[in-house]
Amino acid sequence: MVEERVERRLAAIMAADVVGYSRLMEADEGGTLNRLKALRRDIIDPAIAGHSGRMVKLMGDGALVEFASAVDAVTCAIEIQKKTRQFGESGGDSTSLFRIGINVGDIIVDGDDIYGDGVNIAARIEALAEPGEVYLSRTSADQVRDKLP
Amino acid sequence: MVEERVERRLAAIMAADVVGYSRLMEADEGGTLNRLKALRRDIIDPAIAGHSGRMVKLMGDGALVEFASAVDAVTCAIEIQKKTRQFGESGGDSTSLFRIGINVGDIIVDGDDIYGDGVNIAARIEALAEPGEVYLSRTSADQVRDKLP
Repeated sequence: MVEERVERRLAAIMAADVVGYSRLMEADEGGTLNRLKALRRDIIDPAIAGHSGRMVKLMGDGALVEFASAVDAVTCAIEIQKKTRQFGESGGDSTSLFRIGINVGDIIVDGDDIYGDGVNIAARIEALAEPGEVYLSRTSADQVRDKLP
Repeated sequence: MVEERVERRLAAIMAADVVGYSRLMEADEGGTLNRLKALRRDIIDPAIAGHSGRMVKLMGDGALVEFASAVDAVTCAIEIQKKTRQFGESGGDSTSLFRIGINVGDIIVDGDDIYGDGVNIAARIEALAEPGEVYLSRTSADQVRDKLP
């Protein structure tokens, strides 16, 4: 079997974006950026680090995060949504700021970047998610069933 | 959410065993052990190394191997079965010596050892496999569909 050898690994991919980002920026550019920066520092980055995730890239209002474990990815996503809701409720801000989608895939690794269906599907699932919710593809749901409290 | 933090990772688990091991050993203990040793040295170990696998444990006539990628695990398993068949045909020996099962799971890691459903399912799939064949669980089939030549 002749095959070009690419580096692959199984990973849980979390895609997240900000609901209504353009509208928020139009209404209050500085305030929106400051609020997102604070959320990232206080909620998102610590949640990712606490579940051994790796921020692969930030694209405007979106983020792509890789986890070695699907259980860790889902637990992290739930924590982000829960804490963002608490933050919003305490400050009177939007309580459903993020959409999050998670997929498990056999992805292609090229240095620090990742490619393949597994990544694309995470982004598509995320686009379907309701604000404040975490949506899972079947392959990620298969891996967390009976493993979450 | 209070939860004991265990180390987890997504992995493709390959379980393999020797078909009719007890019968082979009864018929020719020394010859069987020598043949298995040669197969391991010439076919199995190089195939595992060539696909970045890690031999987790050998248990009598069985082996448990971990791969970071499902595509790598399945390609490796097919290579082992194909080369074992060629070896058998050239030497007049059994051409269907191994049963192989593969599963993808979010496993628990403890040092060099691995635990969890993901591992148990690989062993159950392997027990169902026909001699000389590679059987895949649904979670592993999901990950290699359209990715193998």
